[in-house]
Amino acid sequence: TPLKAAILVVSTTAAKDPSTDAAGATLRNVLEQDGRGQWVVAESKIVSDVITEIQRQITLWTDEANNAVNLIVTTGGTGFSIADHTPEAVTPLLHKHAPGLVHGMLAASLSVTPFAMMSRPVAGVRNQTVIITLPGSPKGAKENLQAVIKTLPHACLQAVGVNSRALHSGG
Amino acid sequence: TPLKAAILVVSTTAAKDPSTDAAGATLRNVLEQDGRGQWVVAESKIVSDVITEIQRQITLWTDEANNAVNLIVTTGGTGFSIADHTPEAVTPLLHKHAPGLVHGMLAASLSVTPFAMMSRPVAGVRNQTVIITLPGSPKGAKENLQAVIKTLPHACLQAVGVNSRALHSGG
Amino acid sequence: TPLKAAILVVSTTAAKDPSTDAAGATLRNVLEQDGRGQWVVAESKIVSDVITEIQRQITLWTDEANNAVNLIVTTGGTGFSIADHTPEAVTPLLHKHAPGLVHGMLAASLSVTPFAMMSRPVAGVRNQTVIITLPGSPKGAKENLQAVIKTLPHACLQAVGVNSRALHSGG
Ligand code: NA
Repeated sequence: TPLKAAILVVSTTAAKDPSTDAAGATLRNVLEQDGRGQWVVAESKIVSDVITEIQRQITLWTDEANNAVNLIVTTGGTGFSIADHTPEAVTPLLHKHAPGLVHGMLAASLSVTPFAMMSRPVAGVRNQTVIITLPGSPKGAKENLQAVIKTLPHACLQAVGVNSRALHSGG
Repeated sequence: TPLKAAILVVSTTAAKDPSTDAAGATLRNVLEQDGRGQWVVAESKIVSDVITEIQRQITLWTDEANNAVNLIVTTGGTGFSIADHTPEAVTPLLHKHAPGLVHGMLAASLSVTPFAMMSRPVAGVRNQTVIITLPGSPKGAKENLQAVIKTLPHACLQAVGVNSRALHSGG
Repeated sequence: TPLKAAILVVSTTAAKDPSTDAAGATLRNVLEQDGRGQWVVAESKIVSDVITEIQRQITLWTDEANNAVNLIVTTGGTGFSIADHTPEAVTPLLHKHAPGLVHGMLAASLSVTPFAMMSRPVAGVRNQTVIITLPGSPKGAKENLQAVIKTLPHACLQAVGVNSRALHSGG
């Protein structure tokens, strides 16, 4: 059975007018086409770039034991402006931090453009769900997700308690 | 109009005898000569490597809305010794963390020498000011600043609310 | 005189049956054979992957001023599963964080395998002791330690107050 992914578009503009969002569809394509059949996009929402709204949607997807998704990918809200709040919303929700995923995303992005330094990704685990934050631009979001997509199934399986260490060992 | 930078030399030795400091002048040269006309060094100070002194000078530069600088670069106090306090002073002041800038500085330094692993950089935003911490050696400080100087104007413009995303997207 | 290292194997399985542990002996070999005579393994313990047990053993090695070790390397407990607690146990013990060592370990591991993204290393200083967390697999632990072993003596000497900056400057 495929793993369940949720896409959270964080954009005050797109929350008012969903037709302005391109990143959500881009990420769905990456999961469905580059994910080698391992993912189904079970949920997709758009929220304003407001800490309480981001946190409320994420915890709806992570805190119900029998109904949690395996992966949440957010897009948007990771820049330097006063309106960018995604890392600050996600960080306090994490039970485990995943600097290896952050490093992997940044190294991959920096090999494409030095402006990847402007991204502020966070990654980790809440309960049994892996969460990663991607940039808001469809191009940046796609590159970052592609950089980690091969590793994510193993991370998600560990997070739900499947012992995948015999195969691939991060821990 | 150019962006306003402030240089903070953190050194208990140089606070007593400013003639011992070489890193401050080095960083001024990088900003003025490698900065493509985008920077003016508006402020430069030397403080002892004491948490309260570091924090007092930084907040003087970041907390007055109409008079804040766009960028603070510190040099010194980032090593492993009991007298090194810069990261511990800066971290609690940050409203946003910038792991992309940290990664960019470390990756650049590590391509020069494995001893770059001994640096402990932090980077982020307080109010509308971007802050990065550089090593104390003029050579290390210069290499780190050169690694990120092309990206900093965009980060600083986002931090003051200019939408530079159409051009370069980290968020 | 060589520096004193301690090896902490974090494994609930090995705590019950030490014969199942291979990582401890692997790390001892790296320190003794790749360490160019700079290390003696003064201590070695196995604890269950329980936060209080990890913290108790580490503080026994770091908090007695005249008897502290220079370096603690842990192995295990850094994965994504609910039973992995090493980073969460070590992080609150650190007085200084060392993102340069984390970056060095991750960059080296990622050059070997993308599954290195699944590691969640932390590194830093408590009192006068440098602490790094390594993966649980002997192969991953060895690769990570080899990536930083040349730098560790300088970091440890700074941590005990020896001024090694004239030679190698991270601070
Ligand atoms: Na990194």
